[in-house]
Amino acid sequence: YKITVLPGDGIGKEVMEEALKVLNAVSEKYSIEFEVEKYLFGGCAIDEFGTPYPKETEEACLKSDAVLLGAVGGPKWDDLDGDKRPEAGLLALRKSLDVYANLRPAILFNSLKSASPLKDEILKDGLDVLVVRELTGGIYFGDRGTEKIDYGYKAYDTESYTTMEIERIAHIAFKAARNRKKKVTSVDKANILDSSRLWRKVVNEVSKEYPDVELNHQYVDNCSMQLIKDPSQFDVILTSNMFGDILSDEASQLTGSIGMLPSASLRGDKVGLYEPVHGSAPDIAGTKKANPLATILSVAMMLEYSFDMIDAANDIRKAVNDLLEDGYRTPDLGKGIILNTEEMGDMVVKYLK
Amino acid sequence: YKITVLPGDGIGKEVMEEALKVLNAVSEKYSIEFEVEKYLFGGCAIDEFGTPYPKETEEACLKSDAVLLGAVGGPKWDDLDGDKRPEAGLLALRKSLDVYANLRPAILFNSLKSASPLKDEILKDGLDVLVVRELTGGIYFGDRGTEKIDYGYKAYDTESYTTMEIERIAHIAFKAARNRKKKVTSVDKANILDSSRLWRKVVNEVSKEYPDVELNHQYVDNCSMQLIKDPSQFDVILTSNMFGDILSDEASQLTGSIGMLPSASLRGDKVGLYEPVHGSAPDIAGTKKANPLATILSVAMMLEYSFDMIDAANDIRKAVNDLLEDGYRTPDLGKGIILNTEEMGDMVVKYLK
Ligand SMILES: CC(C)[C@H](C(=O)O)[C@@H](O)C(=O)O
Ligand SMILES: CC(C)[C@H](C(=O)O)[C@@H](O)C(=O)O
Repeated sequence: YKITVLPGDGIGKEVMEEALKVLNAVSEKYSIEFEVEKYLFGGCAIDEFGTPYPKETEEACLKSDAVLLGAVGGPKWDDLDGDKRPEAGLLALRKSLDVYANLRPAILFNSLKSASPLKDEILKDGLDVLVVRELTGGIYFGDRGTEKIDYGYKAYDTESYTTMEIERIAHIAFKAARNRKKKVTSVDKANILDSSRLWRKVVNEVSKEYPDVELNHQYVDNCSMQLIKDPSQFDVILTSNMFGDILSDEASQLTGSIGMLPSASLRGDKVGLYEPVHGSAPDIAGTKKANPLATILSVAMMLEYSFDMIDAANDIRKAVNDLLEDGYRTPDLGKGIILNTEEMGDMVVKYLK
Repeated sequence: YKITVLPGDGIGKEVMEEALKVLNAVSEKYSIEFEVEKYLFGGCAIDEFGTPYPKETEEACLKSDAVLLGAVGGPKWDDLDGDKRPEAGLLALRKSLDVYANLRPAILFNSLKSASPLKDEILKDGLDVLVVRELTGGIYFGDRGTEKIDYGYKAYDTESYTTMEIERIAHIAFKAARNRKKKVTSVDKANILDSSRLWRKVVNEVSKEYPDVELNHQYVDNCSMQLIKDPSQFDVILTSNMFGDILSDEASQLTGSIGMLPSASLRGDKVGLYEPVHGSAPDIAGTKKANPLATILSVAMMLEYSFDMIDAANDIRKAVNDLLEDGYRTPDLGKGIILNTEEMGDMVVKYLK
């Protein structure tokens, strides 16, 4: 299997080291070869090539079975023009791989329950929401511009969706729900937006093919409340790029352990892009405080979705779960036996064996 | 003072009765005449006139010093076309009054602290956030459409802002912060959107006129996390129509008492539109369970912002605060001496005297 690794910026580089250790351990345990190549991406690529997603990085990514990404961005590149920023590279990467389906599980680990900002009576039996976010359409990729007008400027962005784009992401959500609690909540703003009205219509159509999966609809403002009020009502949340950005971050924060959350971006075949939900955290870069578990769990998602290695994926998840139960923590996870980034990577490898 | 009253649909009608009782009590106490006229608006106007915002309602609103609104909408009107729905009336009302500044305070009442879904250690010294939401621009009012394409449809909406629109809402936020903790957090998605980049630039410019007010910027996805992680970092949140819709509902829910939260929509002179943050709650309409306090506190905002009657406004707030301290509750507020909608209205009047 060919894996392109993009450590990126800030703590991205640090957590990726640990994820690769774990990948190595899996490789040995299962006697499977992974062909791993690292490329520059994000701020470090801007420094070297003047662009966040250089041609040679793109070529490598397009030839791989999976791309593993750390995190990009930092204050150093914040003042660049929109199309020259690390974030523009991220959008270009997603688009060039055509990974339109972003899966973001927000899970409350049993041993980290106390880390959640929510009261126990609200958490009830935990929190296990999968946000399925459309990733290559919507206002992120729509027509945009800024023009001089009589007084100052006018700037615009376009939210837009086609039937096809909505259909394919809806299928992903319904299929995912089939392996879970069989419930999809589709989120839109259909009381105002035309794109949301089309979204709702198409999702209703697609749902007919999944009579075993329950479907309901929520407006995005209501969903942002319901997530806090009663998160256990949710199984799979299906939504657009922009709403998914906001709601998946909200859902992550409800677990209290954003340093634990992986994500997968898929396009229907086996190719995928895997990255932690957290960012490059320039404030703690270099301090060895970064939690590598989100990236390590992203490796697990890669093994499952791109390589069909479900046992290996579950091994990693079990290792993480067990070491948490035994009290090992990075500083972001609260009290326990505190490990630094490297030590945590080593610990996962140890539990894996 | 001329007040146009739009009870609307569902519990809107019920809570408005109580709010008018309180307005009457204020009128007697302060010997001030209010000229109050009721008009149809929302679903009930659709039933009667085929449109949510009939001409005669509009004419009355445009001639008033303030408009007091209950809530609109319900399942009965959910399947109508976009431009015929109660929500379209709400947008048309806001636009025709030109009330571009929506102020939504999310406050945790001391006696209702336990109602918050957040843990005590997160709430620390409570929660007192004012969301200043741009209300007559952005994607709610941008160009939109749906067109037939080769396969299915393509639907789009346009987010757009001008320098002028951003300047005027920014001034409102900075001025509000001056009377509070002197901190503005402006929320955008400037790492992606052109409209957000203009937003950030203009807010930075305007902030120079308020050197006594601290300004910081957050991306909307991050803000949706920060609100949960550490809500006491916020004083005034300044944001666009769409982001404000989502974030103000999230902030409201953090108080656990959305039935308590009023809002004011202003346009820079004294004219304003006042309404509770909650909706028409068709599920409890007719059961006498609705909490009228959000609408009653909206009357207080009206007295303060439109009529400069700050003492009367504070009288209402004190009455509400005192009766909560004494244990009176509507069912949504949890345990206590439970009152129905009417009894709660009467209780506020009693405490006012
Ligand atoms: C960095 C940014 C462009 C990105 C996004 O909004 O997609 C990030 O917030 C994410 O959610 O992956
Ligand atoms: C009903 C809807 C159109 C409205 C909005 O989104 O503005 C509501 O959610 C609100 O926040 O006042």
